[in-house]
Amino acid sequence: MAQVMSNKQVLLRDFVNGRSPTESDMYVTTNSISLKVPPQDSNAVLVKNLYLSCDPMMRFLIMKSDQRMSKYIYPSPGSPICGYGVAKVLDSSHPEFKEGDLVWGLTRWEEYSLLPNPESLIKIHHTDVPLSYYTGILGMAGKTAYAGFFEVCRPKKGEYVFVSAASGAVGQLVGQFAKLAGCYVVGSAGSKEKVDLLKNKIGFDEAFNYKEEHDLDAALKRYFPQGIDVYFEHVGGKLLDAVLLNMREHGRMAMCGMISQYNLPEPQGIKNVMQIIFKRLHIHGFTHRDYDHIVPEYYEFVLPYIRQGKLVYVEDIVEGLENGPAALVGLFNGRNVGKQVVALAGH
Amino acid sequence: MAQVMSNKQVLLRDFVNGRSPTESDMYVTTNSISLKVPPQDSNAVLVKNLYLSCDPMMRFLIMKSDQRMSKYIYPSPGSPICGYGVAKVLDSSHPEFKEGDLVWGLTRWEEYSLLPNPESLIKIHHTDVPLSYYTGILGMAGKTAYAGFFEVCRPKKGEYVFVSAASGAVGQLVGQFAKLAGCYVVGSAGSKEKVDLLKNKIGFDEAFNYKEEHDLDAALKRYFPQGIDVYFEHVGGKLLDAVLLNMREHGRMAMCGMISQYNLPEPQGIKNVMQIIFKRLHIHGFTHRDYDHIVPEYYEFVLPYIRQGKLVYVEDIVEGLENGPAALVGLFNGRNVGKQVVALAGH
Repeated sequence: MAQVMSNKQVLLRDFVNGRSPTESDMYVTTNSISLKVPPQDSNAVLVKNLYLSCDPMMRFLIMKSDQRMSKYIYPSPGSPICGYGVAKVLDSSHPEFKEGDLVWGLTRWEEYSLLPNPESLIKIHHTDVPLSYYTGILGMAGKTAYAGFFEVCRPKKGEYVFVSAASGAVGQLVGQFAKLAGCYVVGSAGSKEKVDLLKNKIGFDEAFNYKEEHDLDAALKRYFPQGIDVYFEHVGGKLLDAVLLNMREHGRMAMCGMISQYNLPEPQGIKNVMQIIFKRLHIHGFTHRDYDHIVPEYYEFVLPYIRQGKLVYVEDIVEGLENGPAALVGLFNGRNVGKQVVALAGH
Repeated sequence: MAQVMSNKQVLLRDFVNGRSPTESDMYVTTNSISLKVPPQDSNAVLVKNLYLSCDPMMRFLIMKSDQRMSKYIYPSPGSPICGYGVAKVLDSSHPEFKEGDLVWGLTRWEEYSLLPNPESLIKIHHTDVPLSYYTGILGMAGKTAYAGFFEVCRPKKGEYVFVSAASGAVGQLVGQFAKLAGCYVVGSAGSKEKVDLLKNKIGFDEAFNYKEEHDLDAALKRYFPQGIDVYFEHVGGKLLDAVLLNMREHGRMAMCGMISQYNLPEPQGIKNVMQIIFKRLHIHGFTHRDYDHIVPEYYEFVLPYIRQGKLVYVEDIVEGLENGPAALVGLFNGRNVGKQVVALAGH
């Protein structure tokens, strides 16, 4: 007979539209779950979640919208928050997974999850690095930074690179990749602590606190008197408008997020779009979801740097599923320093 | 001794910023000119202008701005308007040009011009087609349409193409190129006459009058229930915002103009930029100036179609330099139907 366990969960109370999510939009409850895949679920896995990833894109999953992104799971009110995580397979009826496998991919915010479509899960083969890295540098964030910087931006040695939200899960990697590519890289972030981290630990050439700049255009002109060749966009809004004014001819922008806009009732208008024509810019929206094929190449590139200590990855790990809602909400206030992770009991 | 001729000119009265240009921003005067290149000008040509081209980009040449585009000539107040045209060489001290050559390229709004840097002029070799075509289908507009559609948008057979300002100098060509590429193409324009032209003469699958649409998003959904793969952007503003909502995943936008924005004190904000991420769009600003090398290939492509009558090109030709200012101003009110040209006496 299957073991039945108590299962702590973080459930969505109701959809959140046009405002910042708060902790009270979620609630923690305890349910029970059988630790065996039910016989009728022929391709499911039952996992114990070890680490959960807090990502800005999760904002879209808890929003009522007819615009749904492929590959994601959208929680309905009363069901667990969905997102990326690292988990251990406890039982499987799927031919590709077996008990004891470590995996990363889309899971739910609960201690144990029955995942009916585990095809999107990726098996973890390298365990000599921290397992939490599979929520970040070896997970979606790493894939986003690698594909976005090398495939989308196609940087050339000596180019000028600007990264917004630079100390975040993706930004800190883009900065380090830019240095590896021989570029000059400046990052923006929202506190002195983050700016110090960017300059002293992560290795950006320069960094600034956008909250202390009244005139973002002037700030960019100070850090990029020659202009910007490559912009890795996470923020949107006024910063994007100022960046447009400072791009060089034939500059490239990789856009994978606009966190400043997610919680507004209506997005801010971008006024300097004519710069796209004047400067002959290339702007590419992209998502890591289109780059699954790049993971083996990326791991071959990144794992040696991690093992040799030549890439750092700053994580902000909170312990306990019950602290998940505050961690997730904190993303949108810039509370986290580095990649925000929730570690579950027994990780 | 050199022949001295009277030389009618259209001069810029003063820079025009933040409003629509009017006829009174220019004035017609008559000067005199020697029809020989002065001995000290070792690389100049003296031309008789035959056709002058009215192009939206000329708006930027009469604006006070520190943002100057390469290759253009910027008139100062009291000097002739600059733009593209077709001319005949009367005298030359430049080794590549000789008396009698027909050329197209950057010239001035006057009967005769002394051009000190004729390197940008292109010699006309095919005279079995109307010479005025070198202001349009065989000039900058043609190069813009060809490079923008085939090189920037990279259309695939069966894709859905939307063209704004579709009956204009460039738009009418993009529509016909789209049909040649096996695409479905819809155009927008600003009058019933233009819409009829697009559908009945130029060969667009559908066309609509944007001035009669209160809800541009709804209009685009009506014409593109499946969404838009390729957008050729000439207009900007609200239409761009509505197009962003209707793009398909991996859609492409070629941007070479935003005529709705040129005369505003401040550009309109674009709100739907997050669609660039959701749809993973590719947006490329471009200018024909980066595609000079494509002209031979383009002529090889387009001349047979012109000669066989398989491409039409609608021109709106006014006679007389003194009617130039009204023609140029009319561009920004949509007065022209087709490519706006000014024909000079003796063309």
